[in-house]
Amino acid sequence: MTKELIFYTNPQSRGAIVHWMLEEIGQPYSVRVLEYDTTMKTPEYLGINPMGKVPAIQHGDVVVTEAAAICAYLADAFPQAGLAPALENRGEYYRWLFFAAACGEPAMFDNAAGWKADTADLQRSIGYGTFEMTFDTLAGWLAGRSYVAGDRFSAADVYVASLLNLGMDFNLIPRKPEFEAYVAPLLERPAKKRADAMIQGLMAQGV
Amino acid sequence: MTKELIFYTNPQSRGAIVHWMLEEIGQPYSVRVLEYDTTMKTPEYLGINPMGKVPAIQHGDVVVTEAAAICAYLADAFPQAGLAPALENRGEYYRWLFFAAACGEPAMFDNAAGWKADTADLQRSIGYGTFEMTFDTLAGWLAGRSYVAGDRFSAADVYVASLLNLGMDFNLIPRKPEFEAYVAPLLERPAKKRADAMIQGLMAQGV
Repeated sequence: MTKELIFYTNPQSRGAIVHWMLEEIGQPYSVRVLEYDTTMKTPEYLGINPMGKVPAIQHGDVVVTEAAAICAYLADAFPQAGLAPALENRGEYYRWLFFAAACGEPAMFDNAAGWKADTADLQRSIGYGTFEMTFDTLAGWLAGRSYVAGDRFSAADVYVASLLNLGMDFNLIPRKPEFEAYVAPLLERPAKKRADAMIQGLMAQGV
Repeated sequence: MTKELIFYTNPQSRGAIVHWMLEEIGQPYSVRVLEYDTTMKTPEYLGINPMGKVPAIQHGDVVVTEAAAICAYLADAFPQAGLAPALENRGEYYRWLFFAAACGEPAMFDNAAGWKADTADLQRSIGYGTFEMTFDTLAGWLAGRSYVAGDRFSAADVYVASLLNLGMDFNLIPRKPEFEAYVAPLLERPAKKRADAMIQGLMAQGV
């Protein structure tokens, strides 16, 4: 029996990453749009995600939160979509998925907030060192590559390309040629275009 | 043929997480100890990890960096160790592995650095909201549980327990009863004790 797949999101949130991933998976899902400060903070939703934020998914009895975790879970749960690499490429897959989530995101948003680690000790403790080194490292890996892991599109590309695209759109990171060359073809994927159209539709409805 | 497994670390680094994981896996590996500011910054090592930090592993041709990614990779690469859960628990597994790496760690170290998100917009952009909410959420999940995912020890426990143990040892997070009850039995695992003894040995050698 197919388990129900419910997607909690807001069109202006990291839910956009998961929306793209769900469209890549190609299985039916229902969308529940939540609002910041109101429906994200009800006791009912806090039972799903006590952080009171989106995205989250519920797949049968399983709740998954954190956009990168949801991407990794959906890739494993629906192997027929081919978005979880084989073992030989799983090292690269996890490496860059965690790098983007735990170095790229903090580096980007700390920098935007004006939080700078200005001592070697602090650079070690925050893990990503400096904003510049973090995005230089990612650019170095992406140079000449179409995909993060091996020669096939995977859930890690949904996450990494979404982060870079958001960062460039909002001028939070430099428009490095390596980022533009990697991201541009991925934005043309039919699943990404479907997700974007659905997000636009939700925004137009004022939800 | 068995691929060689090389572990790059420093006894006073996040390498301790991976050291524990490697001992849980129970396969042979060689340890290369690197020093901050010197051997972590050689062209040779920057070819392994351009971030110039440890831990990293090399498994045959595959390089994996980021402690959480290494845990997830090793669990998949050595399924006989039973540290990667079956699909039914993989949602929880990824959820808390990414939560610890991308919310817990930044919340802990930002707080230690005195970086506070004091507006709702900033709390959204950094993702984890507030330090207090992050560790309250983790405590809520761990209450009454022995393991993060299902009823079996997994790679996610190596990571989550290591983070909480470090945080409590250095007074970076509160000693919540949920954390102490979860962490204490995991610290008694033979693999954790072996890893700690090896780390103590490296420190005693002055490396």
